Amino acid sequence: MFFQIVILQVPAIAYGGPKTTGDQPSPSSTKIAESLVLIEFVADLFPNSSLLPKDPVLRAKTRFFIDTFANKFGPALFTFQSGKAPNGAEGIFSAIGQLQDLMAPEGLAIGDGTEFTLADAAVIPFFGRMEVSLKNDFGAFPEGEGKSTWEALQTDKRFARWKKYWDTAKARESFKTTFDEDYLTKSYSTRWTRA
Amino acid sequence: MFFQIVILQVPAIAYGGPKTTGDQPSPSSTKIAESLVLIEFVADLFPNSSLLPKDPVLRAKTRFFIDTFANKFGPALFTFQSGKAPNGAEGIFSAIGQLQDLMAPEGLAIGDGTEFTLADAAVIPFFGRMEVSLKNDFGAFPEGEGKSTWEALQTDKRFARWKKYWDTAKARESFKTTFDEDYLTKSYSTRWTRA
Repeated sequence: MFFQIVILQVPAIAYGGPKTTGDQPSPSSTKIAESLVLIEFVADLFPNSSLLPKDPVLRAKTRFFIDTFANKFGPALFTFQSGKAPNGAEGIFSAIGQLQDLMAPEGLAIGDGTEFTLADAAVIPFFGRMEVSLKNDFGAFPEGEGKSTWEALQTDKRFARWKKYWDTAKARESFKTTFDEDYLTKSYSTRWTRA
Repeated sequence: MFFQIVILQVPAIAYGGPKTTGDQPSPSSTKIAESLVLIEFVADLFPNSSLLPKDPVLRAKTRFFIDTFANKFGPALFTFQSGKAPNGAEGIFSAIGQLQDLMAPEGLAIGDGTEFTLADAAVIPFFGRMEVSLKNDFGAFPEGEGKSTWEALQTDKRFARWKKYWDTAKARESFKTTFDEDYLTKSYSTRWTRA
């Protein structure tokens, strides 16, 4: 089994075909795009991993969690960062509350919280980017609103389960070795400059 | 295995627990919502059905087709029906073109076109509603634009593969026995009344 990550659309995978460099995928490989399609594909390639639970109900819960993330949290964060959220951070708080309600009581997101699933794979990179964006006040929101939103997520009891989740997720080895906070911070600082 | 369709949010399934009437689901059943989560759930309950191909690449193609439908076709149709599409039906035409390019050369959507998959399950009900809406001119678009859009989809060579797909899908027994065109026509006619 061979697949490589290539830059076609971000992110995409070229699957099968001969080995090539990442920027020159073979015409005979299959190109697969869209992050939520890709993570299901990886789960299909590794059916014995924990990425999707075996139980159909837990699988549905995994997908419902991802659906809530994609359709509630994603738009709320985007609107806030664009400075177009009518009620400031309330959209983010509401979406975090909904995700929290779908989480296992402790640990990771699904089932008994002991297994890393697609639900975690879907949200962790975005929570990481949210943290960098908010705590450095990078965004088109009024000055200080990023920092105060991050502060609320860290200290308000309403978000206690989410904060615990995020601390657990960040402590994982795979996060620490792949999440490049310095790079993101530099990149966001040039994108969001305040006068 | 027992599940029933209940009206919690439309659509939703109550899975497990004691048998009850559809409007009074048992507190001990699991409630699952969101149509795309539900169809994956049904595929998980019936792993030997054709709903998801066995091959991981074909599974990814099935999901990419659904993703394109949900993120391109859905918004385009909604914007057009709301009378807010800046370029009239062009958004619908473009999305239908994209879906068409992802279809098997003939028959149903995925693989060799012989098996009914989640890709078909996701799009067929919406194409049915689109047909009722357009050919009866039900929508907030300028008078006549629904009918002319439907006419183009039926006759323009650009949409030949889509039209063939749609004819194939409509001829299936499961569509004919479950799609209630009269009910939809009446329902839409009260929702969209022209002065």
